[in-house]
Amino acid sequence: MTSSNEHWFPGAGAAKGGPYPGGRVGPNYPRNHWWVIATSAEITREPLQRWALDLPIVLYRRGDGRTVALDDRCPHRWAPLSKGWLEGDELVCGYHGLRFAPEGQCVKVPTQAAVPAKACVHAYPLIERGPFVWIWTGDPARAGDSEPPAIDWLEEDGWSVLGGYMAAECNYMLLKENVLDLTHFGYVHRKTFKILDWDRAPAVKVENGQVEFRLEFPPSRLAPIFAAVTGFGEKPIARVNWGRSVSPSLHLAGQDFTDPQPATGEIASAAFRVLHATTPISPTRMHYFWMAAWDLPLSEPQRDQMLRTTLAGFQEDKDMLEAIQAQMIRDPRGLAFPEVMVGSDQPAVQARRQLQRHLDQDAI
Amino acid sequence: MTSSNEHWFPGAGAAKGGPYPGGRVGPNYPRNHWWVIATSAEITREPLQRWALDLPIVLYRRGDGRTVALDDRCPHRWAPLSKGWLEGDELVCGYHGLRFAPEGQCVKVPTQAAVPAKACVHAYPLIERGPFVWIWTGDPARAGDSEPPAIDWLEEDGWSVLGGYMAAECNYMLLKENVLDLTHFGYVHRKTFKILDWDRAPAVKVENGQVEFRLEFPPSRLAPIFAAVTGFGEKPIARVNWGRSVSPSLHLAGQDFTDPQPATGEIASAAFRVLHATTPISPTRMHYFWMAAWDLPLSEPQRDQMLRTTLAGFQEDKDMLEAIQAQMIRDPRGLAFPEVMVGSDQPAVQARRQLQRHLDQDAI
Amino acid sequence: MTSSNEHWFPGAGAAKGGPYPGGRVGPNYPRNHWWVIATSAEITREPLQRWALDLPIVLYRRGDGRTVALDDRCPHRWAPLSKGWLEGDELVCGYHGLRFAPEGQCVKVPTQAAVPAKACVHAYPLIERGPFVWIWTGDPARAGDSEPPAIDWLEEDGWSVLGGYMAAECNYMLLKENVLDLTHFGYVHRKTFKILDWDRAPAVKVENGQVEFRLEFPPSRLAPIFAAVTGFGEKPIARVNWGRSVSPSLHLAGQDFTDPQPATGEIASAAFRVLHATTPISPTRMHYFWMAAWDLPLSEPQRDQMLRTTLAGFQEDKDMLEAIQAQMIRDPRGLAFPEVMVGSDQPAVQARRQLQRHLDQDAI
Repeated sequence: MTSSNEHWFPGAGAAKGGPYPGGRVGPNYPRNHWWVIATSAEITREPLQRWALDLPIVLYRRGDGRTVALDDRCPHRWAPLSKGWLEGDELVCGYHGLRFAPEGQCVKVPTQAAVPAKACVHAYPLIERGPFVWIWTGDPARAGDSEPPAIDWLEEDGWSVLGGYMAAECNYMLLKENVLDLTHFGYVHRKTFKILDWDRAPAVKVENGQVEFRLEFPPSRLAPIFAAVTGFGEKPIARVNWGRSVSPSLHLAGQDFTDPQPATGEIASAAFRVLHATTPISPTRMHYFWMAAWDLPLSEPQRDQMLRTTLAGFQEDKDMLEAIQAQMIRDPRGLAFPEVMVGSDQPAVQARRQLQRHLDQDAI
Repeated sequence: MTSSNEHWFPGAGAAKGGPYPGGRVGPNYPRNHWWVIATSAEITREPLQRWALDLPIVLYRRGDGRTVALDDRCPHRWAPLSKGWLEGDELVCGYHGLRFAPEGQCVKVPTQAAVPAKACVHAYPLIERGPFVWIWTGDPARAGDSEPPAIDWLEEDGWSVLGGYMAAECNYMLLKENVLDLTHFGYVHRKTFKILDWDRAPAVKVENGQVEFRLEFPPSRLAPIFAAVTGFGEKPIARVNWGRSVSPSLHLAGQDFTDPQPATGEIASAAFRVLHATTPISPTRMHYFWMAAWDLPLSEPQRDQMLRTTLAGFQEDKDMLEAIQAQMIRDPRGLAFPEVMVGSDQPAVQARRQLQRHLDQDAI
Repeated sequence: MTSSNEHWFPGAGAAKGGPYPGGRVGPNYPRNHWWVIATSAEITREPLQRWALDLPIVLYRRGDGRTVALDDRCPHRWAPLSKGWLEGDELVCGYHGLRFAPEGQCVKVPTQAAVPAKACVHAYPLIERGPFVWIWTGDPARAGDSEPPAIDWLEEDGWSVLGGYMAAECNYMLLKENVLDLTHFGYVHRKTFKILDWDRAPAVKVENGQVEFRLEFPPSRLAPIFAAVTGFGEKPIARVNWGRSVSPSLHLAGQDFTDPQPATGEIASAAFRVLHATTPISPTRMHYFWMAAWDLPLSEPQRDQMLRTTLAGFQEDKDMLEAIQAQMIRDPRGLAFPEVMVGSDQPAVQARRQLQRHLDQDAI
């Protein structure tokens, strides 16, 4: 696993079969796929505009609570429908008042009795599951072939959950590769998360199209944020840290902490989980929804500290990834710059292959 | 007139003969045509830079009051001549001091006796008429074939006139189509102009290349701003509302108010007129000069209320049109999105045809 | 020399052999050439990012004081190396910790023993000379064929030296041509430098690839700033003003002042020198390093006045050149606009020819 593996990155014109689909600057996202489009709380009776996968989409909630996603572009004069408002479950265009049913069909033209049959917008399949609403922008006939993944700790009791959202000016795969190679902890996050022992390539496996890595750490003193939240303090604690690229749209990660010599009446283990849902806005921008959870109750100060540290750390990732993306765009050498792989890139390399598999299925 | 009329919008590569010349993102403006370049008051002894129809133009006024429009680009080192100053009626380049006569010929090179014959810039034909200065950027030999339209209420006494200017980030035809379909009043302007009965397609005719629509409204209580300005208050008043696309550069509109049961000593009618002069800056930007007039004296509060309401309403149009233009540019589907016509689009459809006629004449 | 010399500027697609290499909007800079990349003071133990000639470069100083310039892009995940830090003389990537020697070779991958041979970045030849560090972005094998020019007054005692830096949004040749034609003084700088007698074309010669002009001014009262700094006050003083385009990267200029009737015990002459080092960032942006020197001691107020006036004057040049560049980019006629030459353009025309010679040598 740790032998070096070098190759040269293909130029901008490289075929889709190359090692990096879309080259981080093209539309390298499968459409026959479920993507997080919003948190549940964001979708209300006020129409919400959101771009995703290069599409302008308007989101709203029906009276009975069901969510709706339509093309955010009136087929009459192309006004964004999100500038309109709801009448019951129908969306009224704010320009000339055409009304659209949740299924996308125009049901009223205020100035005439006849409604042109072609006056309709696409209604995107949505699934609301836990804190997220997932969208399908591909062939609607294939939407039933899969469903958004279940995430146990979001659906079980007993977890202390935090979350947040950022938009970042980079291709979504840059964030995927970031979380698939945690050897960046000692560099990017050395002053925030302060995990300094992620110094070797992890074991990697690919199973059912999911790429998983795992690394065990022998008992040692925890980084301050983890010591504080778990209450393990300065005791030597064993850790297992794993990450799993579930699909192009979702990455899950975990750290499992074990006290090899637990004191009587104190906890012997703790679990930390993180979810990274990345949704392309365009080839060079992304939505980034994240959640983090502990199987412990958190006090208000612990919660605050956890949130502050996480936000600071994710901002460090964003700064780095946006700098990489900006450089790729500005440097006339573009993608024709060497890209050297090392052992710790195996998870990312495998995830690229899985992404290519998804893109190939899209093209069928 | 009210039967629906559907068609699909041509893609970006569609021929000029398609239903929408230039597709709202191309240079769809005839050059052998008079366009408003500035208000009279804007042209002074200080050189003024103004872009129009993709051209940088410098405007100034001669000692005897005549207006001048030259290429705003010195043929020597390409400095904008608008960064220079006047010496008498000649424009001095602010870089190396070359002087240009109002006809565009260089008349002095400070460092030498000889003046190169090729050192000249284009002098654009201008006509000053009432509050506006009109420019001709096409073949100068054809400038005499037509003249800017007369607008009676700008040249007669007894009118109370207001006016203003906005730059908008959209193709000028979006504004043309906006004022050719007033069924948007009940949606875009429902909180400003509050005209809520524009709920059916008007009659349309095309005559002498001008597209005119007209709609009569039976007596009813006027919207607040019109009630206040006319003094009709809550009485039921009959209205005729018409609009006329005079040419690609000019749209005129009017509302005629009649009191069917006038009280003794009170006015029985009132007339309101609006002028929309749109001049392309580029395919996706425009100058928008407007004027509005009443055949009544206005008190200072009436004038203020009229101006405030009009500015608020025109800002609503600008917001909507800029959102449409931005969407057209950003959405990768671009012009390849369905465009469905309804009955109230007849005036706009006819204006597109007239525009095509102008563009065809341009190409001769 | 002063006969007029007209030609039409080639369109954007003109061949490299045309009169203006690269057309002021293309990459018209030789690579086998020394360019100023930074002042000495800017290069420290903190890695510095600087773009030049379309390349992202990271600069730092070794422990022994030698300067280093590397590609600012890690060959592993393309992070800007300037976001990292130094360990001894090695640069640590701030993403995953790869370390690079000053020669560009990766010497450490923190997560494994093996270092891929291809993991290296380009190390650019640098020469530090006086206040500047010069870079060579061309073929390293040819870097020894030339060296940055010596500038006597920067290497001698007895000069009072000022300097500064600006980035400007224009092709570097616009500044070159600006300083090769000082007839702009009476226009651009009429309110700052107030030299109003630069009203004729100078003599020009080309020698050893350097273009030099020279103009003598008979005794006259000096412009205020020069009267103040030299102490000549209102006396009539003779001047010789010359400029020399040493190479595409460097222009030197001087004014020599002589009092034809010096009073006993007062100075009879004074010399003023200016250096303009322009380095392309991209075809439409440049770094501009300048220095100015007097062979006189300057009092603090004299120094302040000289600096203020110079900064104001150079800002006037920047405003003009950026306006020209912006116009070239925005005007759809682009480079297909007439360009008329007059006698005072001879130095610029000759410098264009020398630039073409450099570009031709680059292509060998």
